[in-house]
Amino acid sequence: MHGSRKSLLLKEKFMAEIARDPAFHLADIYDLSKDEIRERTMEKFASLVHYVTSEPLDVFNYRMQLISTVDPGFWTRFGVHFGLFLGAIRSGASPAQFNYWIDKGVIGLNGVIGCFGMTELAHGSNVAGVETTATFDEQTDEFVIHTPHLGATKWWIGGAASTATHCAVFAQLIVKGKKCGVKTFIVQLRDVQTFQLKPGVNIGDIGKKMGRDGIDNGYIQFTYVRVPRAHMLMKHTQVSREGIVTDPPLAQLTYGALLSGRIAMVADSSNTAKKALTIALRYAAVRRQFAAGKNQPLMAQAIAIGFTSLILTKMYNELTEAMEVLEPGDPNLKEVLEKLKETHSTSAGLKSGRALVGNWADAQKGKPLAPGVAYMSDKANLTARSDGKLDLADIDRAWACVAANVVKKAASDFASHAAKGVNKAEAMEMCSQSRFIAAKLHTIGYMFRMFRQACNEQEEGPEKQVLTDICRLYGLWQIEEQGASFLKYGYFTGEQMDKVQSEVDALCLGLRKVVIPVVDAFAISDHIINSPLGRYDGDVYTAYFNHVRAANPPTKQHPYFDRLIKPLLERKPLEEEDVDAAMGFSEELAEMEKERKASKA
Amino acid sequence: MHGSRKSLLLKEKFMAEIARDPAFHLADIYDLSKDEIRERTMEKFASLVHYVTSEPLDVFNYRMQLISTVDPGFWTRFGVHFGLFLGAIRSGASPAQFNYWIDKGVIGLNGVIGCFGMTELAHGSNVAGVETTATFDEQTDEFVIHTPHLGATKWWIGGAASTATHCAVFAQLIVKGKKCGVKTFIVQLRDVQTFQLKPGVNIGDIGKKMGRDGIDNGYIQFTYVRVPRAHMLMKHTQVSREGIVTDPPLAQLTYGALLSGRIAMVADSSNTAKKALTIALRYAAVRRQFAAGKNQPLMAQAIAIGFTSLILTKMYNELTEAMEVLEPGDPNLKEVLEKLKETHSTSAGLKSGRALVGNWADAQKGKPLAPGVAYMSDKANLTARSDGKLDLADIDRAWACVAANVVKKAASDFASHAAKGVNKAEAMEMCSQSRFIAAKLHTIGYMFRMFRQACNEQEEGPEKQVLTDICRLYGLWQIEEQGASFLKYGYFTGEQMDKVQSEVDALCLGLRKVVIPVVDAFAISDHIINSPLGRYDGDVYTAYFNHVRAANPPTKQHPYFDRLIKPLLERKPLEEEDVDAAMGFSEELAEMEKERKASKA
Repeated sequence: MHGSRKSLLLKEKFMAEIARDPAFHLADIYDLSKDEIRERTMEKFASLVHYVTSEPLDVFNYRMQLISTVDPGFWTRFGVHFGLFLGAIRSGASPAQFNYWIDKGVIGLNGVIGCFGMTELAHGSNVAGVETTATFDEQTDEFVIHTPHLGATKWWIGGAASTATHCAVFAQLIVKGKKCGVKTFIVQLRDVQTFQLKPGVNIGDIGKKMGRDGIDNGYIQFTYVRVPRAHMLMKHTQVSREGIVTDPPLAQLTYGALLSGRIAMVADSSNTAKKALTIALRYAAVRRQFAAGKNQPLMAQAIAIGFTSLILTKMYNELTEAMEVLEPGDPNLKEVLEKLKETHSTSAGLKSGRALVGNWADAQKGKPLAPGVAYMSDKANLTARSDGKLDLADIDRAWACVAANVVKKAASDFASHAAKGVNKAEAMEMCSQSRFIAAKLHTIGYMFRMFRQACNEQEEGPEKQVLTDICRLYGLWQIEEQGASFLKYGYFTGEQMDKVQSEVDALCLGLRKVVIPVVDAFAISDHIINSPLGRYDGDVYTAYFNHVRAANPPTKQHPYFDRLIKPLLERKPLEEEDVDAAMGFSEELAEMEKERKASKA
Repeated sequence: MHGSRKSLLLKEKFMAEIARDPAFHLADIYDLSKDEIRERTMEKFASLVHYVTSEPLDVFNYRMQLISTVDPGFWTRFGVHFGLFLGAIRSGASPAQFNYWIDKGVIGLNGVIGCFGMTELAHGSNVAGVETTATFDEQTDEFVIHTPHLGATKWWIGGAASTATHCAVFAQLIVKGKKCGVKTFIVQLRDVQTFQLKPGVNIGDIGKKMGRDGIDNGYIQFTYVRVPRAHMLMKHTQVSREGIVTDPPLAQLTYGALLSGRIAMVADSSNTAKKALTIALRYAAVRRQFAAGKNQPLMAQAIAIGFTSLILTKMYNELTEAMEVLEPGDPNLKEVLEKLKETHSTSAGLKSGRALVGNWADAQKGKPLAPGVAYMSDKANLTARSDGKLDLADIDRAWACVAANVVKKAASDFASHAAKGVNKAEAMEMCSQSRFIAAKLHTIGYMFRMFRQACNEQEEGPEKQVLTDICRLYGLWQIEEQGASFLKYGYFTGEQMDKVQSEVDALCLGLRKVVIPVVDAFAISDHIINSPLGRYDGDVYTAYFNHVRAANPPTKQHPYFDRLIKPLLERKPLEEEDVDAAMGFSEELAEMEKERKASKA
């Protein structure tokens, strides 16, 4: 599950390093205020920047995978600089620009701390729609960065509120009055010595963000801020001194900065689930309430995502290497683009419906498909039927069958809408429910295959048997969860579905005695687990009680007894007074009436 | 959706009252610290205690339904006193005991603020397993309340940490050395004048609880605390002066304190969902990103739960009335017990699997069934088939068909396990997956029927048409979600399931133009919505920006620039020194070697 023995040893070294680092003290983390947790985040920068400047990138990325389960807020803040800001430079800068920013100190945070200015208040992640403008001023050879209205305010910019010096700003390039699309510009936000905001830059704090209070999220408004022409990243699109705009031959290669984040999220999903499951399963082993819990399918899923992540990370590393040596007119171009497409689509998971519809069309034309979608090429998959064995091979065929069928349905829904004359985007929108189902079943089937492949590569022995059982549990449990498609396309009969259900129950029961060794194999230290209920030694109640007592020491004086509780407790019950009787009101009225009558008379 | 016009007007009156109450100021609520939000909770007591003492119970409960969407933490804290502590007294005290506590001031919080001591550290909500002991001392006519070990510490007791004076303690009754089951004892925790802990009572703070930071959750340990015999609630079980224990003829009537909470949760689910959907749908109407959202099915579900809640609340009120006038040997006893069973089972929703298995057995014996499960009596439901209309009647039959089939499967799984000789509890456990599916489909079908009934009772007109469309959407969307059972039991064919999917899409599209009037009909004020994105007037971005700016005013000085950021930015890049060269180390070694050789020679 760790890729290799070397990886596991490395992870254990990382865990030992942070366990003694005061910046990674975790016991009080849930009780810190927003301001305290933000300051703690910044303390971690100093302790990790050493490694980023001295370790190979793959080792450092592996270290960061671990950090993300320890402190997701810090991981995100660090990732904003190294993943997004530096990633934007890496994928968008020309070689000379790249060298300039490296010399400036981007790698070691010497003089530059970056943030990533994509999202706007009214636009979210619709990149093509951002409204911040970057207008080329031919006279001064500068771009003028400007926020034209409130909705174009850069919003949820991690690091902007109080720690970034520079920002990679996404803005509409305007040259000679003409819009030329969204490009990236490096804009300095603050003076490096005094940390004062640069002229025309207005920054505010956005405050808390659930689960990410450690990031100083901010908003940024630019008011006619000037940057040199060289601050537009020009690897792909160039603007010359004379204002001539040259577009790249391959637009597909331009959006690289976000891909690494997606790949990291796959590992993160697995690792975070493994941390949660370590707590849940160890606690469940100690605690017996009404009934035995059934967390085994979730454990199987976390492991499936983990193997998928190992394979995706490898794919991504190969792709990055290939893209870095790519020259215009390279003979490998087509192959690299295919790899990029597959990595994109696979890492997108539930977003991959559009790509699947395209893959289906390719399959019909007999084009060769990437391995992840190759099942679409074999027409026999559409009408496959179970042999009733429910073993790995049977489960594999089951997923190929339903995935092929639901992708086919999405493609034919798309075709029938398109045939009615609506445009492609609308037709895609109209079949969104079918595409969603296709993406879901395709993704689950893909993860099952990655899991199965990992089982096959395992050496013979008891571990392989356990892993195979867990893999079967994952495949069968998901068949139960997504049962409608398996019945609809006839892969399983109703009686076979009953057998799937009882097989899932039997696997859960059988795995019960090995779940603790399996979660131990996740190899997450007690320091990172950071929960008395998930301790390795199982002594949960004493540890939990002691933790709670230490975290909530008694106060010398009650904070609000005198002001709020005492008046409530000692309040006299309300007694309804007979106002009329107390005033003698009715008698008074009667008297007045009598007088009036007398005067009338 | 509000039951009646009168109810709606009442709700609007409640909203107007709290909108101006400083204790219900909401704009800063997400930025308060734990200590601040707890104090705010206590401020609300003073403003609401007036109503609890002056309003009829049903009006006050309706007010509390609203309060739960405004401040769930306060609602829970208030509910701990009025729902759980007072509820325990109401359902467990003898008439004389009840009068005593009312005279003490329980209703108006005059001298008594209660909490509910059921849960223990090692036992959660397994009531029968609590380990706190209440040992009868015949000599002094007292019970001795004691926490025998750490695991028996009362845990997660809302209100215990700093606001309660008394506790309804669940403890194992021990008389003459014999365990007599878990009973409830009223134990004073603090002196009412000084708020000092009573001797033998040890209380600590448990700290934060996500979403409920406003409650002062605490733990309680009792060390031989003595209470008079009369402090055991004795409506059901009695202990005489001589230590003779008399058990109640009807054990089913003893657990009433938790039922009202369950009923309240149904209303709360609907109201909280309506609040969230008001924000989501109004915001979605303003914001257009990649694609139109599809929140309509969730809106349909919130409305379905709302109608179910109206009916359940009525059922519960009738039941409470009937139980209060119940005398031993009453001729209505059987009927009341049936009502109690149905209310219990219906309000339990996904916990109702065991009851359903029992209902199925009753149906086979030809016993009459409660209306909510009457569909089990008609064998024709098992083999019903769709007429393809997908109208309300067709959908209703669909749910009756699958619910009958999945309950039948759970019952037969139970029977086949029981036939193998395991005991009843084990057999129930072994068919838990089938029971879970049965409970889920039964509950959805039940909610659909309640929704349909509400549609039928609506006056003819455009509102009825919209409501009917929403009801169809709910039924069909859930059929899509739970598709496997409809295919497995043959109610729908695969092609009909495709038609269900396209009908759901069409209904979503058709309802798009009325979703805003529908959420407006939820009638939740902007004050309670408490989100700039869900404002009635739709001016979201200006309001959002102004809110964020007001909530996060700029600080005069950066909190950690000098300590943490400056040293990072101005750090010199590490230069690897050639230690060997700097020391002249190799030369020194060579010199020493030379000398050694020379001395040897």
